[in-house]
Amino acid sequence: MSERHEGRRQRVWESLTARAPEVAAFVVTSLSNIRYLTGFSGSNAVLLMSADQAVLGTDGRYVTQAGAECPDLPLIIDRATLPAVVTQWSRQSSGSLAIEADHLSLSAYRNVAAIVSESHGSSLCETRDVVESVRVIKDEIECDLIAQACRISDEALAAVVRDVRVGATEREIARRLESEMYARGADAISFETIVGGGPHSAIPHHVPTDRPLELGDFLLIDFGAEVAGYHADETRTFVMGRPHDWQVETHALVLAAQEAGRASARAGVELAQVDAAARSVIESVGLGDHFGHGLGHGVGLEIHEAPFFSARSEGMLHLGSPVTVEPGVYYPGRGGVRIEDTVLVTDGPPVPFTTTERGLVALG
Amino acid sequence: MSERHEGRRQRVWESLTARAPEVAAFVVTSLSNIRYLTGFSGSNAVLLMSADQAVLGTDGRYVTQAGAECPDLPLIIDRATLPAVVTQWSRQSSGSLAIEADHLSLSAYRNVAAIVSESHGSSLCETRDVVESVRVIKDEIECDLIAQACRISDEALAAVVRDVRVGATEREIARRLESEMYARGADAISFETIVGGGPHSAIPHHVPTDRPLELGDFLLIDFGAEVAGYHADETRTFVMGRPHDWQVETHALVLAAQEAGRASARAGVELAQVDAAARSVIESVGLGDHFGHGLGHGVGLEIHEAPFFSARSEGMLHLGSPVTVEPGVYYPGRGGVRIEDTVLVTDGPPVPFTTTERGLVALG
Repeated sequence: MSERHEGRRQRVWESLTARAPEVAAFVVTSLSNIRYLTGFSGSNAVLLMSADQAVLGTDGRYVTQAGAECPDLPLIIDRATLPAVVTQWSRQSSGSLAIEADHLSLSAYRNVAAIVSESHGSSLCETRDVVESVRVIKDEIECDLIAQACRISDEALAAVVRDVRVGATEREIARRLESEMYARGADAISFETIVGGGPHSAIPHHVPTDRPLELGDFLLIDFGAEVAGYHADETRTFVMGRPHDWQVETHALVLAAQEAGRASARAGVELAQVDAAARSVIESVGLGDHFGHGLGHGVGLEIHEAPFFSARSEGMLHLGSPVTVEPGVYYPGRGGVRIEDTVLVTDGPPVPFTTTERGLVALG
Repeated sequence: MSERHEGRRQRVWESLTARAPEVAAFVVTSLSNIRYLTGFSGSNAVLLMSADQAVLGTDGRYVTQAGAECPDLPLIIDRATLPAVVTQWSRQSSGSLAIEADHLSLSAYRNVAAIVSESHGSSLCETRDVVESVRVIKDEIECDLIAQACRISDEALAAVVRDVRVGATEREIARRLESEMYARGADAISFETIVGGGPHSAIPHHVPTDRPLELGDFLLIDFGAEVAGYHADETRTFVMGRPHDWQVETHALVLAAQEAGRASARAGVELAQVDAAARSVIESVGLGDHFGHGLGHGVGLEIHEAPFFSARSEGMLHLGSPVTVEPGVYYPGRGGVRIEDTVLVTDGPPVPFTTTERGLVALG
């Protein structure tokens, strides 16, 4: 356990000091990054690490948990956790202290800067994406957990949809799906389950309501299980009863776009190019305006993490990144379709973690 | 609907400009603050407001939702939401732009500062707790929603505990409790449900496991329902079968501490004094070290919000604040007790929102 986290800390340290050789220590404030580097999963934590040392800060509520999850790490227990950790460092050390500019509020930064400025010869080094860049490529244990979360999601969806009938409400379906995920071993729900029937399927982040399903509705379900902190993300769009022509066409278009996105999602391909591969399918029939979000994102300790697929994305895909591919076409007030899978990037076609049938399935 | 939010924005503007009369506009980046000031509940938003105007920024996923939740507000739709909103402001206006230093990452701050510095005569004004200070006192609609969330929590707990038997696992109890809350109209779960049996009851923020309950265990349940964004927070500690003497004593001690805390929680009393009132009961029998967290916190659009009760707290209680009072005594490896209610601060004794029996109840 602790060897794995020590290895990760070492890779992060190498990556950090390759960019900023002057850095003497790194104070990590993103909870996901801390979980990745230590195994600690509490809601308040600060990690201070250097070439050969690491110390975890948290508060009194988490003493037992920290001892169980990262027994190899010395602890600093203080309600004012970040100032306590930085104060202790600045008393014993000096030099350049790296901070995570994306995961430190301006207030916290002012606080840390004041402590460090009192220490002669010390300064702050603002960094971005240091741990995130290492996290992009998942190891075998991480991939196994994501695969497990995706299998639970697939199985829960199968268990729920076979009983969905006209008249069922969005909330009922969402709650049943969540119960089925828990029953299959999910530790948590990846994010607020989206269930949208009829016109609500056109709202990409719809919150389930008491609207009952009607014949002819699209039924969009976007959901996922979480296992040991790792997320699954999957969307399927069903139809209640016999589909109308526009529904068959829209669904087929989105599926074709997803196929194109998946086919292009290989190691070494530019992120913007993957987005373009799927988007151009939808744009080619003049519906580009109806696809108002990015094509997908990385999945791991966070439900949305690097890499991100959009027209503005920079950088390329790497071997061993689990990502989503999720194009959508939405007609406000009428209905929409999204098809999303979590897949693993390889040198060839991506390996799907979610494997539920993608063709248009009629329910009820 | 929109009048209520307009009134809130006006109060916030008055409070802000009383502190910083030079401010020309305020960019709000806390999602809870934005929900309070606009009704918008999406996961990406920026609010820009001035004396007589307000505009909401979000991205393409939320166009329909924003139109439904805050139809009176003009929208800026952009994936890079914050830069887009600030850029539009700085093109049309100048002067001092207030920011929320607690709710802006250092990176976002650098970004905003760069945009503003390009505009002649403009600057940033770092603020803290402007909206939070207004949010401390809840209006009638807010109190009703919290009361509703608390009633759902009470009823769900009653439905679950009557069936709890030796052998039930922590996870089973947590999931059943959550189902019962949803069945009674909860929109969400306030926070990850804590169910700790036996030694796990001594871990204040325990994550439910598959450990089955044994005869003689303490069973600590800390949970709450969420209704329209407003939270409930409640803890009860039960015993499985006939309690041991130490369990009766510990429970009675924590209940006495809670009583003392509740009795002192009146408008005008110093926050640290409320903490001290409860803590001194536990310290008087030499167990102060076994109560390692603050006495409680405000409850509203966030599960933990101002005011906070701890020895270090500054400021006083205000009429109309819903707060928790939740002392605990924990014996690591053995068991612990916490008793928590959400109550409304008044001029007299606080009005309890959660009302489940507080005496030691034996289950199974």
